[in-house]
Amino acid sequence: MHELKARREELAGILGKRIVYVYENGWMYELYVKNEHVIDYRIHSGIVGGRWVRDQDVSIAHLGHGIYKISWTEPTGTDVSLSLNIEARRTHGTAYFPRWIELDPAKTVCYQNEHLELMHKYRDEGPTYPKMAVDEFSSICYVEDCGVDNESVITCAPSEISAEDPIMVALRPLRK
Amino acid sequence: MHELKARREELAGILGKRIVYVYENGWMYELYVKNEHVIDYRIHSGIVGGRWVRDQDVSIAHLGHGIYKISWTEPTGTDVSLSLNIEARRTHGTAYFPRWIELDPAKTVCYQNEHLELMHKYRDEGPTYPKMAVDEFSSICYVEDCGVDNESVITCAPSEISAEDPIMVALRPLRK
Repeated sequence: MHELKARREELAGILGKRIVYVYENGWMYELYVKNEHVIDYRIHSGIVGGRWVRDQDVSIAHLGHGIYKISWTEPTGTDVSLSLNIEARRTHGTAYFPRWIELDPAKTVCYQNEHLELMHKYRDEGPTYPKMAVDEFSSICYVEDCGVDNESVITCAPSEISAEDPIMVALRPLRK
Repeated sequence: MHELKARREELAGILGKRIVYVYENGWMYELYVKNEHVIDYRIHSGIVGGRWVRDQDVSIAHLGHGIYKISWTEPTGTDVSLSLNIEARRTHGTAYFPRWIELDPAKTVCYQNEHLELMHKYRDEGPTYPKMAVDEFSSICYVEDCGVDNESVITCAPSEISAEDPIMVALRPLRK
């Protein structure tokens, strides 16, 4: 319990945050840092817009100066490292996608939790190499403190969010 | 040329640096940031001690406050994201290793540049999944400014470095 408390203090600046960030090309991602080793996320637009995921296991590190690094490997085989600087409203994402996702990104557009076996099947069928690298800065356009272990933050596909939901109201001017 | 100059200014705190860092378990890594998209490295100790690599293509980003993120995907299929805070003398490394490396790490211990086809063969034979995640802080114990595009920084296997080489003299007290 003592160790968990220390971890939560170290990561206090990021835990429980719902963060929306947008890449220069307009692709919009929503991340909820559920606790010190779990995230939920939802992709609002871009080539894999519509994809959403709950309970992805991650590693989170505080690099200093309020800059956090969240890293994970997905059931699809994609490896991701996302750095966030909430104060500067900036993120930097690096992802290495297996070749089969580059060839047909729509295969990953779903509520992943209900299709884990299919994702593993695609992953194992490949092709895996050469990987597609994505390495980009983005801007944070929305931050909300939802507290940790809140199961009511990301509960549906992006297309099913009510237009009156505060996040949709806040994001409306930014959506492309 | 103008763009290259701006990139080199943004990354001035890391370019041309030779950095040695040590994980808590004693594993020691030497990194040379050759320019804004290339590193050389050498592993002095640990399960893949003896491995060394020149001209690995990487992405480098300045996250702010002198914290840099260097990311790359290796010919072995390993994906790496290394964050460095030289002022705080701390790094944080995340790596996702294919399963075949976890099963037999010695396969990767070589001067990789002379065995690229073999690395691709191992990579393609797999098994790839499940990946082995490594996610750790380490301490920087040595920093030297060698300038960019210096081909004389990392030129031999760790075991072949002369005991009189300044880096070996500096590191002697730290070696386990």
